[in-house]
Amino acid sequence: LEELVDAVVEKMERAQGADGYLNTYFQWVEPGKRWTNLRDNHELYCAGHLIEAAVAYFQATGKRKMLEVLCRYVDHIAATFGTEPGKKRGYCGHEEIELALVKLYHVTRDPKHLALAKYFIFERGQRPGGKHYFAQEAEARGEGSKKNWTGLEYYQADMPVREQTTAEGHAVRAMYLYCGMTDLALETQDPTLTEPLQALWQNVTGRRMYITGGVGSAHHGERFTTDYDLPNETAYCETCAAIGLAFWAQGMGRLTGEGHYIDVLERAIYNGALAGISLDGKKFFYVNPLESRGNHHRRDWFDCACCPPNIARLLASLSGYVYSTSAEGLYVHLYASTRASVELGGQTVQVEQATQYPWHEQIRLTISPERPAVFAVRLRKPGWCRTATVKVNGKPAETTTDKGYLVLQRTWKQGDAIELKLAMPVERLEASPAVGSDCGRVALQRGPLVYCVEEVDNGGQLNDLALEPAEQFKVRHEPGLLGGVTVLAAEATRRDDAAWGTELYRTANDTPRKKVGIIAVPYYAWDNRAAGEMLVWLRQG
Amino acid sequence: LEELVDAVVEKMERAQGADGYLNTYFQWVEPGKRWTNLRDNHELYCAGHLIEAAVAYFQATGKRKMLEVLCRYVDHIAATFGTEPGKKRGYCGHEEIELALVKLYHVTRDPKHLALAKYFIFERGQRPGGKHYFAQEAEARGEGSKKNWTGLEYYQADMPVREQTTAEGHAVRAMYLYCGMTDLALETQDPTLTEPLQALWQNVTGRRMYITGGVGSAHHGERFTTDYDLPNETAYCETCAAIGLAFWAQGMGRLTGEGHYIDVLERAIYNGALAGISLDGKKFFYVNPLESRGNHHRRDWFDCACCPPNIARLLASLSGYVYSTSAEGLYVHLYASTRASVELGGQTVQVEQATQYPWHEQIRLTISPERPAVFAVRLRKPGWCRTATVKVNGKPAETTTDKGYLVLQRTWKQGDAIELKLAMPVERLEASPAVGSDCGRVALQRGPLVYCVEEVDNGGQLNDLALEPAEQFKVRHEPGLLGGVTVLAAEATRRDDAAWGTELYRTANDTPRKKVGIIAVPYYAWDNRAAGEMLVWLRQG
Repeated sequence: LEELVDAVVEKMERAQGADGYLNTYFQWVEPGKRWTNLRDNHELYCAGHLIEAAVAYFQATGKRKMLEVLCRYVDHIAATFGTEPGKKRGYCGHEEIELALVKLYHVTRDPKHLALAKYFIFERGQRPGGKHYFAQEAEARGEGSKKNWTGLEYYQADMPVREQTTAEGHAVRAMYLYCGMTDLALETQDPTLTEPLQALWQNVTGRRMYITGGVGSAHHGERFTTDYDLPNETAYCETCAAIGLAFWAQGMGRLTGEGHYIDVLERAIYNGALAGISLDGKKFFYVNPLESRGNHHRRDWFDCACCPPNIARLLASLSGYVYSTSAEGLYVHLYASTRASVELGGQTVQVEQATQYPWHEQIRLTISPERPAVFAVRLRKPGWCRTATVKVNGKPAETTTDKGYLVLQRTWKQGDAIELKLAMPVERLEASPAVGSDCGRVALQRGPLVYCVEEVDNGGQLNDLALEPAEQFKVRHEPGLLGGVTVLAAEATRRDDAAWGTELYRTANDTPRKKVGIIAVPYYAWDNRAAGEMLVWLRQG
Repeated sequence: LEELVDAVVEKMERAQGADGYLNTYFQWVEPGKRWTNLRDNHELYCAGHLIEAAVAYFQATGKRKMLEVLCRYVDHIAATFGTEPGKKRGYCGHEEIELALVKLYHVTRDPKHLALAKYFIFERGQRPGGKHYFAQEAEARGEGSKKNWTGLEYYQADMPVREQTTAEGHAVRAMYLYCGMTDLALETQDPTLTEPLQALWQNVTGRRMYITGGVGSAHHGERFTTDYDLPNETAYCETCAAIGLAFWAQGMGRLTGEGHYIDVLERAIYNGALAGISLDGKKFFYVNPLESRGNHHRRDWFDCACCPPNIARLLASLSGYVYSTSAEGLYVHLYASTRASVELGGQTVQVEQATQYPWHEQIRLTISPERPAVFAVRLRKPGWCRTATVKVNGKPAETTTDKGYLVLQRTWKQGDAIELKLAMPVERLEASPAVGSDCGRVALQRGPLVYCVEEVDNGGQLNDLALEPAEQFKVRHEPGLLGGVTVLAAEATRRDDAAWGTELYRTANDTPRKKVGIIAVPYYAWDNRAAGEMLVWLRQG
């Protein structure tokens, strides 16, 4: 892989213009159109992804060449865009470069990189001289000013970002903008960003997020719609949007130290994002509905190929989401069998997790500092978990709870073992009465996993199934099923389809419903067997 | 109005080409493109509507000029299209001229008019010389043969009409084709048309029709989709499609003498079609969903302006659907206060209906032949009615039931009075278990009217309302409401919205639901008051 990337970087360097510009389409296919349509052409967006690649490659290999190529490109971009006289006051129609520039700054510590991120974020939605940049450049292209510019919220560009309080427009664009704003807030401690970020977070997670962590209710515009509009069969929920929400949640967690943000990160990665890839890793969903009549399937690739590499890089970088440190000690955000070395109080601490999470409730952590030291270990207590117990070296341990974390403050010495048990009953979740699509329905969740029923296990006509409110679920691990999953089994009722004639409508009667066994599987694993219906929100009869 | 039409006809005559052609767009705007794109250009479709207008104007006024103009145009069309050598083997991408030509034939009795209708119907979907006409003309336009022709079912042109068994493609096109086929079958008694028509009817009304008589489930393509795919909020249900279904139902009724076809006609006109126009007659729906979040409203007009004039002509011609005659006697298909003179057994019979139908169960018919005569009066017993009683001149009358009609065979004399009572309880209808969108839900119907609940009467969050199965509805006529409607009142339950916090999802609990009174109004009358949610299929808890 390294050889492959080195060869590509070689080509990138040769392709780069003398002025630092690097986008082969606008260098060779349409050279006259460079920076003429920031709204639609994804020119800065592509630069952003290249910057992210350069940072990641440097972090993984220590090789600087790609980073240097991109730094030259960023110099060119910084010379082109800005509020200074003679510069274009533009920004990209698809956000991405903002968060990439903050990542670049983490590596280079070059203040110019942070300043450029800041410029792109705060210039967005401004109307210098009374005219919006996207209107200015459209006029410059000769499109006149007749176009109706009321659609600017699609690009989160209808007003300055500090004034935005609801999540509007294209969901992936929105997520990447909010990530950039959060990253910038983290770097600059700018209090004027915190308030809009909290408002946007409240709006997304309190009114516009599917239970899978998917966002973007509408196919048309791949976008956010209105509060509580969360249709299941026609949900868009682009894989990239769930990934973007996970990125943003991590940023908000870092910004505030609050564990409930990581609950959303966990929800998005285990459900809305992970469904985006087949169990064999070869097929992908672009769109992740919560209900299907059996005609929605993963595909090898897409003309607009953002989702497959995005889920690939998320999975490849998952280990980066598990731990973090502060002056006070170690954060354990996610639970997964891992080994890590973290720098804490001037020494290296080895951290090891052994767990069958999310299938099992039990997590065993070993904390091994080089020499005994006092620090806090903060264990995230997931929002879905009502009972958590902690032992240290076999004995019940006293913990305090702070911002969603169980805090163990003590002297740690080599081999200290934490046993954490997160009670994982099957939960039936209901949605707010304002969510019309989910009224009279429940979603099943165990631990961080949202479940669904599939036709292959339950027959078709899944909407006719009704759960009794008192029915108890049996939890059963099936090592041979879907790569090894824990399934939920229960009894439900349905009409006797065979007794129904050919009529489409008839007078409702109280014919007894028949009892049937049902099996629910994790949502992420759906559409990996025979094609058929799928349903997340089950009717409760 | 007559002056206005006469002036237009004058212009039409002057505009008509020497060869009889009449379509000002292809005469003056794109004269070279005449008959070059039958698939998309609606050229024959427009001719069809003009023919219908000419027939209607002749029938209403006895004036022949418009008819003569159109007959010359039809001569030109007949000289242009056909299977004979030198003629184009084309037909319109949007059916309409077929049914129009049969109507023309009713007036002219010119066999050429019927033959042309027959040609257009049977040529459809053929592949003379192995090539589809739409592909031939695309090649002639220089578009090459690369286009994927798998979309021909959109035009009901993927196979010959006798082979079609499921309703596919654009719903209005399909309805007009089936009307033409039915009208042709009526004229020619062609048994090879009856079987496909029955199959198509079964498919539409048994698997693809909303309870309102609306058809066409998808906005994309304004079309039929798959069996039992009847989403409520995203239903397309173009007003024209419900009107087309009513036309077709009338034709099928005439073809078979069976009343269940008229049940569908009645369902479509009282619900799916009538909703297409506001109570003041000034605003129109193009799209008629069965659920709305409050953002769907009638409008003054549409760029594609088919629906407003279509509902106008349906309402203006409604009287033509009430009665018909056969050698045996009089059919009463619909119930409405009317006076009619019908020719029966060589004399004129006056028929008068006095009724408050569909609000009241009671219908009084007076039958007045000039002189006493023996004939049958057939009263349709609607499919929704389980108990019908008939009195003649105040005394219980014996009736037989035949093909969905109550038959009164006797000697009728001037002033004989029939009292028909059609029991009209409130019905809860359920849909087949295969209709996922309606599982666990019921629709309310009383007489021919489908009901809905609106936010203005019931508050929002209508999906959270649940009806108890045993709850009885109170029926109450409200003369001051919506132009005078009968409403249905009952108690239902809903969650206590005020007690719900800011969370989007929570563990489901068995908090008692609160009781609320609900009011349902006829579906046709929705969106005539304050904007808000609307729902036809209510949850049954």
